[in-house]
Amino acid sequence: MTNRKEVAKLAGVSEATVSRVLNGIGPMKDSTRQRVLQAAKQLNYELNAVASSFARGRSGNLGVVLPHVPKVHLFSTYYFSELLGGIGEAVHSGGYGLLLLFRDPTAVYDYVSLYRTQRVDACIILGSSAVEAERTAVHRLADERLPYCVMDQRFDHPLLNIVAADHEQGSYDAVRHLIDKGYGRIGFLNGAPQYSNSRDRLAGYRRALLEAGVAEDEMLVYEGNYSRTSGRRAAGQVYRDLGRLDAVFVSNDRMAIGLMQGLRELGCSLPDDLKIVAYDDSDAASFTEPPLTTVRVPFYEMGRLAADCLLKQLADRDKTDAPAPLIREKLRTELVIRKSSGN
Amino acid sequence: MTNRKEVAKLAGVSEATVSRVLNGIGPMKDSTRQRVLQAAKQLNYELNAVASSFARGRSGNLGVVLPHVPKVHLFSTYYFSELLGGIGEAVHSGGYGLLLLFRDPTAVYDYVSLYRTQRVDACIILGSSAVEAERTAVHRLADERLPYCVMDQRFDHPLLNIVAADHEQGSYDAVRHLIDKGYGRIGFLNGAPQYSNSRDRLAGYRRALLEAGVAEDEMLVYEGNYSRTSGRRAAGQVYRDLGRLDAVFVSNDRMAIGLMQGLRELGCSLPDDLKIVAYDDSDAASFTEPPLTTVRVPFYEMGRLAADCLLKQLADRDKTDAPAPLIREKLRTELVIRKSSGN
Repeated sequence: MTNRKEVAKLAGVSEATVSRVLNGIGPMKDSTRQRVLQAAKQLNYELNAVASSFARGRSGNLGVVLPHVPKVHLFSTYYFSELLGGIGEAVHSGGYGLLLLFRDPTAVYDYVSLYRTQRVDACIILGSSAVEAERTAVHRLADERLPYCVMDQRFDHPLLNIVAADHEQGSYDAVRHLIDKGYGRIGFLNGAPQYSNSRDRLAGYRRALLEAGVAEDEMLVYEGNYSRTSGRRAAGQVYRDLGRLDAVFVSNDRMAIGLMQGLRELGCSLPDDLKIVAYDDSDAASFTEPPLTTVRVPFYEMGRLAADCLLKQLADRDKTDAPAPLIREKLRTELVIRKSSGN
Repeated sequence: MTNRKEVAKLAGVSEATVSRVLNGIGPMKDSTRQRVLQAAKQLNYELNAVASSFARGRSGNLGVVLPHVPKVHLFSTYYFSELLGGIGEAVHSGGYGLLLLFRDPTAVYDYVSLYRTQRVDACIILGSSAVEAERTAVHRLADERLPYCVMDQRFDHPLLNIVAADHEQGSYDAVRHLIDKGYGRIGFLNGAPQYSNSRDRLAGYRRALLEAGVAEDEMLVYEGNYSRTSGRRAAGQVYRDLGRLDAVFVSNDRMAIGLMQGLRELGCSLPDDLKIVAYDDSDAASFTEPPLTTVRVPFYEMGRLAADCLLKQLADRDKTDAPAPLIREKLRTELVIRKSSGN
């Protein structure tokens, strides 16, 4: 392999000068720089990627920042694995690497330093929520107008970049479906309200009830945490309320699966005793018994779209000094009807 | 923020010298280097991560190289998501980043250049198989004794680093369970033989039959590709052979789920018409109808172990010049008995 010495000799400069040229450091006469680049090219001198990214001010990596939750197999949830799959597809097409980084959800994560230290050229924030530390961290990032995108979580910042799904409409469609089938007494098992997409689901649920003239019964709104275990835990409460319920809308498939398992263990027959509409249309939705009526969310497409938008911003930055347009995408969901809602 | 100019001024050197010191480029008088480092420290001059890794010869990233298969949502398969989860956990604990990179399975991937260009300090190879291009690439990597580990795929190289599960024994246990229950006519739906873990499963299947004095019937060995669709596709053949089958051992849960869906559509009642033992013990195994008897594979632990071994090699490299010991780990599987095998 060619070394720096040979390049220096051919170019007639010192080795230090070769390094300075190839690393883009300091002032340099243009004729000298050209001579060095010419020699390096002629000798096929392989630029070390780090040196080369240092020169270009690039890492070649798109960062994906996830919450670190001990013992939770995050990648094994449909939500994260599909988002990550879509991001991976875009990153692969764009010739980038995907750098996964974990943040502590209780601390203010220093996104800005990821850019300043050139670990990433852009980043996507997954699994974010409206807790104070995360809000502070994302607001700082938005203030700097760095290339970033928050996935599926609203923050109240004028420069927020976000790709989300229309969960208000998705939830409305789910509840509306039950009402149209004649089931008026509809409970709701939601995830935690720190996620804007939980609050959006609640808004959609309420809109559908209001529109149908059904009074909301707060006692029939249950809270889980999007895990199967939390769905199973809710089964006791739902079972207790069975006399007041025709159906339950559940905020994701995993909780719905846990709820069905729990109810079956308590002796329920599904969907006869209770109609269920879930959310996500994960793989599992089609092979539970009964198969789940559920709201399909295009997570893979959302991940791909966010990554594509960011890679485009990076490419455009080389062409223009104009600030990048904001990313504001809201994708449509789709109700998929199966047997759990009594069909 | 402090800039290079101020550091140069305080140290009494040129800006170029500051860069050369901080980037570890070229020869430098030790007293000069000390003066620059002292000034940088005094002024809290933040070393750019790229410059800093360049100086240390490190990226701070563990690479994970995956096959790129268009349209396949790789992260949404239990196998990859669990392995990745375990790797992520180790990488997070070790303060590393996880750099995901995709390879074209038909080309010879240049692993070595990942190290030479300092994109990664070590790497884990997932989803590898014995096709010629992959064999060549892995052999080159092994020849160089770089810190790497192949996940769950054997290659015939004396310096192979591998973390795997004992699929021969796992498969033996699965088939033995069926034999012990009195089901002697056992078919086998396997994945493609380019994976050593498919060949290991076949070996375990054969050992159990041989030991029980059951003659293998080649007509009852079916091939899928570990996807649900391929399991569904196999349902037609299995259905045709029902008169000669008591049970089928299936190489992963996804294929088993597809097979059960297909058989049910053809009018079968499960597990009455056919006993099934699957493999993986993915999330879905417990909520299919009937729930799957399956072989639990500790994928998460395998991922964590491989990453931990590599991070330890990297840490040890700073302490000793001795070559790192080979990584040769084979983890045990465990049969989980549920209703699909007729219990």
